[in-house]
Amino acid sequence: MGVYPTNGDDESKDTEMARVSSSRHLNQNASVHVPHKVGVPSQQKLFKEFTHALKETFCADDPLRHYKDQSVSRKFALALQALFPVLEWGRGYNLNKLKGDLIAGFTIASLCIPQDIGYAKLANLAPQYGLYSSFVPPLIYACMGSSRDIAIGPVSVISLLLGTLIQEEIDPTQNPGDYRRLMFTATFFAGITQMTLGLLSRLGFLIDFLSHAAIVGFMGGAAITIALQQLKGFLGIKNFTKNTDLVSVLKSVFAAAHHGWSLETIGIAAVFLVFLLSAKFIGKRNRKFFWVPAIAPLTSVILSTLFVFLTHADRHGVAIVNHVSKGVNPPSVHKLYFSGENLLKGFKIGVVAGMVALTEAVAIARTFAAMKDYQIDGNKEMVALGTMNVVGSMTSCYVATGSFSRSAVNYMAGCQTAVSNIVMSVIVVLTLLFLTPLFKYTPNAILASIIISAVLGLIDYEAAILIWKIDKLDFIACMGAFFGVIFVSVEIGLLIAVVISFAKILLQVTRPRTALLGNLPGSTIYRNIQQYPEATKVPGILVVRVDSAIYFSNSNYVRERILRWLTDEELKMKKEYNLRIRFLIIEMSPVTDIDTSGIHALEELYTSLQKRNVQLVLANPGPIVIQKLHASEFTNLIGEDNIYLTVAHAVHACSPRVVEEA
Amino acid sequence: MGVYPTNGDDESKDTEMARVSSSRHLNQNASVHVPHKVGVPSQQKLFKEFTHALKETFCADDPLRHYKDQSVSRKFALALQALFPVLEWGRGYNLNKLKGDLIAGFTIASLCIPQDIGYAKLANLAPQYGLYSSFVPPLIYACMGSSRDIAIGPVSVISLLLGTLIQEEIDPTQNPGDYRRLMFTATFFAGITQMTLGLLSRLGFLIDFLSHAAIVGFMGGAAITIALQQLKGFLGIKNFTKNTDLVSVLKSVFAAAHHGWSLETIGIAAVFLVFLLSAKFIGKRNRKFFWVPAIAPLTSVILSTLFVFLTHADRHGVAIVNHVSKGVNPPSVHKLYFSGENLLKGFKIGVVAGMVALTEAVAIARTFAAMKDYQIDGNKEMVALGTMNVVGSMTSCYVATGSFSRSAVNYMAGCQTAVSNIVMSVIVVLTLLFLTPLFKYTPNAILASIIISAVLGLIDYEAAILIWKIDKLDFIACMGAFFGVIFVSVEIGLLIAVVISFAKILLQVTRPRTALLGNLPGSTIYRNIQQYPEATKVPGILVVRVDSAIYFSNSNYVRERILRWLTDEELKMKKEYNLRIRFLIIEMSPVTDIDTSGIHALEELYTSLQKRNVQLVLANPGPIVIQKLHASEFTNLIGEDNIYLTVAHAVHACSPRVVEEA
Repeated sequence: MGVYPTNGDDESKDTEMARVSSSRHLNQNASVHVPHKVGVPSQQKLFKEFTHALKETFCADDPLRHYKDQSVSRKFALALQALFPVLEWGRGYNLNKLKGDLIAGFTIASLCIPQDIGYAKLANLAPQYGLYSSFVPPLIYACMGSSRDIAIGPVSVISLLLGTLIQEEIDPTQNPGDYRRLMFTATFFAGITQMTLGLLSRLGFLIDFLSHAAIVGFMGGAAITIALQQLKGFLGIKNFTKNTDLVSVLKSVFAAAHHGWSLETIGIAAVFLVFLLSAKFIGKRNRKFFWVPAIAPLTSVILSTLFVFLTHADRHGVAIVNHVSKGVNPPSVHKLYFSGENLLKGFKIGVVAGMVALTEAVAIARTFAAMKDYQIDGNKEMVALGTMNVVGSMTSCYVATGSFSRSAVNYMAGCQTAVSNIVMSVIVVLTLLFLTPLFKYTPNAILASIIISAVLGLIDYEAAILIWKIDKLDFIACMGAFFGVIFVSVEIGLLIAVVISFAKILLQVTRPRTALLGNLPGSTIYRNIQQYPEATKVPGILVVRVDSAIYFSNSNYVRERILRWLTDEELKMKKEYNLRIRFLIIEMSPVTDIDTSGIHALEELYTSLQKRNVQLVLANPGPIVIQKLHASEFTNLIGEDNIYLTVAHAVHACSPRVVEEA
Repeated sequence: MGVYPTNGDDESKDTEMARVSSSRHLNQNASVHVPHKVGVPSQQKLFKEFTHALKETFCADDPLRHYKDQSVSRKFALALQALFPVLEWGRGYNLNKLKGDLIAGFTIASLCIPQDIGYAKLANLAPQYGLYSSFVPPLIYACMGSSRDIAIGPVSVISLLLGTLIQEEIDPTQNPGDYRRLMFTATFFAGITQMTLGLLSRLGFLIDFLSHAAIVGFMGGAAITIALQQLKGFLGIKNFTKNTDLVSVLKSVFAAAHHGWSLETIGIAAVFLVFLLSAKFIGKRNRKFFWVPAIAPLTSVILSTLFVFLTHADRHGVAIVNHVSKGVNPPSVHKLYFSGENLLKGFKIGVVAGMVALTEAVAIARTFAAMKDYQIDGNKEMVALGTMNVVGSMTSCYVATGSFSRSAVNYMAGCQTAVSNIVMSVIVVLTLLFLTPLFKYTPNAILASIIISAVLGLIDYEAAILIWKIDKLDFIACMGAFFGVIFVSVEIGLLIAVVISFAKILLQVTRPRTALLGNLPGSTIYRNIQQYPEATKVPGILVVRVDSAIYFSNSNYVRERILRWLTDEELKMKKEYNLRIRFLIIEMSPVTDIDTSGIHALEELYTSLQKRNVQLVLANPGPIVIQKLHASEFTNLIGEDNIYLTVAHAVHACSPRVVEEA
């Protein structure tokens, strides 16, 4: 079975296309006649080309394909279903699924109630606001979201981020009312941001710009920062710094060491932290006991509250929650800032928090969807998250999103649909209505222990090690974000993460890789000689592969790099074969696109090579590239018979001519 | 001559590498035994990998390679030569070259003197500052620059840009002294910016971020804006708008139509404009007459000055230059702002102007270097341009750079080295010393005509048409910059150009192309079925090629896109062959790199495929990719025998298994 076309018929009549013409040189190896040409697809019309590019960018998943050829009423039903997936999966709902969802719902409720109270403190809010945010948003998400496993509610990183950003504007202890108003305003704009990204312009691809490595570093740093903040409750310190960086916190801690630490508090906190961590360990060792770490926090709260109530430890310096307002969420529409400078502040903070929350939620949804193999519609997801936060901002909630730890518990408890979120929401409401007085004697220290044990799971050191192994530059990005959060602040850490992510993209597009190719002995395959040391160079011919689209951002680099390869290899060729390089073959397979600057660079390369009496030859240009080379008449410049289907064809056509001139 | 490895020896002992193991399936077509494996290059050490990446980014051309293995004194000599290329080419200088340079120098001097006076007006400066800027900078460039053809001096676009930006800060008619000081400060920082980009961090790649299309649009728009500005001089209007946008200018022009137009002025201007354009036309038709358009401006100046002097037209409303200071550049070091808010303003304006000037100069240097086939060292060039502007800012010059029109004339006049710039510089000095009084009666209208005829050459409509043909998105970028400059302002046009250029890069990295591959009949070559309609799909196997490195910015898109291919093709496969898709082969040749997010996406893809009972198979992963797949143990996950050297190998190994299960 041969690879080479043989002469066959003379195909040169239809010279519209770049020809694989030199087939006569290939006779020696061919056994089957296969004249193939480099295909030139017919040029697309401007409109079609343009809409195609727009579509792949903004609506990559073709959101309207289901609506084709449907009646109006059917279209309406489909649109309604698209907006509220509950209408689709709700019809197939049954008792069996309900069982799974009930168990999962109860489990995540028992986990979320103590966490909510703690996270609200992290955001400088009264405890009930955490519970509020676990009531309305999950209900809305359950109707609109497409993930079956995500658990919605307040999360630690967003609480910390909001707390830090807003207290820079308004003091939460002196002006709690205004502070809350700004919080709701930020929540409103976080929701608007998420909806906009998902709905209006389908710009959702923007959140792809935070690299995995940067997120790992940022999350780890945030977890440690949050844990450090808990030292206030854990050690019972009264005067604690408002800064979140490591140095300030440690100063605060040691300044209070002499008289500010409460030994009773530390005792309670330490006992229960050990209990919580042991529960986590048991759950990790055996997946059957996943419920142990899930109910451990609520158990701790109950036990510690009882303990304080019975021993009157609160009179001995153990700080307690004291008061959680009874009743469901009060409306807060009238509290949103829609004018003045607080509007602008709320908008800015909201955009940042909304993007980060989105990144987290979408990552969670994707992870679990892949594990159960169902599809997540990223844009629909964003609209759902956005809507729930907009509604939340009007019902005294702050930014809610998907929680990593609770979603994992939800999944392991056997949730079937988003109904588990509804169950959780109902339990939270019942708590708000009837059980809040019971939290009076809950020690703050126990909340600190619960948060510490929860956020430790965000420190993904295994991922960091893997990143170290795979990509050192990625690891630097990861550590940059990590140390930025720990030593400066959450915002700076986030900024470092974004900047490094962008820098990586810019590096990628300005300095693409190029490789020298050699022939694998006994085959017609040409491969990178660095990867395949057995590959041999072709006498008198230099084969270079360009591993990227050639755009304005790299065209000059590519041209200069190729000339550098030529200069470097010329000497070696002289030494090894006593031949000068007569042909330069560029393997174009990976060059997926080229723009005017790229073509210009190729023209300059051609001119430079002509001066050195080296012939430029192209192998396997792709559809878009060959079209553009035609449109710019570059194919006429280098000659259409210098464009070949494969490197092998090109080498076989050029080789005899090298020998002739040597 | 066969392409496939046959079973041969059992190579499975050294399973360090991904194996092309299924060679037994390939027997039918093989005639030569060639077992090749997917090569895994040995992993580089962190330091080496890191320095390599840094080197390719910042010092792509290995600037220190000439210094290896040299004595200290030789190193010093080389460093001196590197900084002052004149020491290198100066030794080979001879009378013959001098002849060429003399002719070229005289020609560009006759062109630059009237242009300089006009451009100085564009920058709201007195005429002599234009001439000053054609004296010092060219001298310095001649010693330090590496281009032989570039003609240095003030240029229209930079003059307009500086004029617009600085008059927003300081009024040039009310505060000419402060205006000049800010101009020199901006020039100083423009030079510092250029030097920094070239020297300190070798960040020169930053200027690659303006795409060719955006530059064409920006230049065209700037040319039209400059021409419109000349209507003031051309029509003899006294009250003229300070805005540069089309609407304001036309309003100004028509508001003055009744009593503000000077018919005598228009007469003179129109006659000489026709003369200049005819000269241009002659020079374009026959390259032998290149000197006609080159000396036409000076001839016009002399003739029109004589005419005004003899007819006393200045008493009839024809505005004249009136006064050009005699003498060479006064020092201006003491005029630079080194404190206060003007320092900041000067810095900002300088950075922008410096970058734009650099882009223009480097583009010119590259163009002519390619035409004569010599190498330009971009970084050295930037250092030279930066130094000349820093020194210029201390000797009453404003930002100078390479001029397109004068460089072309320089080239056609047969310049041999940068000595032509020295000749021009000497002539300008002589003019400043002895001839300035002669410009007293030069009508402003003639300068307007000269500038109009000069900038028309910047409107590169042929390039715009070519861009339209090649790439519609590029054309939109081009038009965006063009209309931005014309209808809003130079800065906005520049901003649009930069933003669109960046947006294009972001598009490229978030939405890479993917293609379905088919087999070219009678060969083992697999190609895009859109480009090669004759290529046939393989029954039961889907072959997809990913045309880009897989990074965090596109990993989710790539995964989703592949799953979409699978869903789309499943139906077709069922219809055509009554087979389900059993294997998904990803052709990895164009995937030059992958990061942790990319590997994560592959893992998720693998999980999704497993649920659908489709086997994931990789073909020809590159050196970096296979290394990282190993490090992350992804190769173990999918099985090392599911990684093949080529698509053909993979298909031949999988095909029999499809049939078995059908």
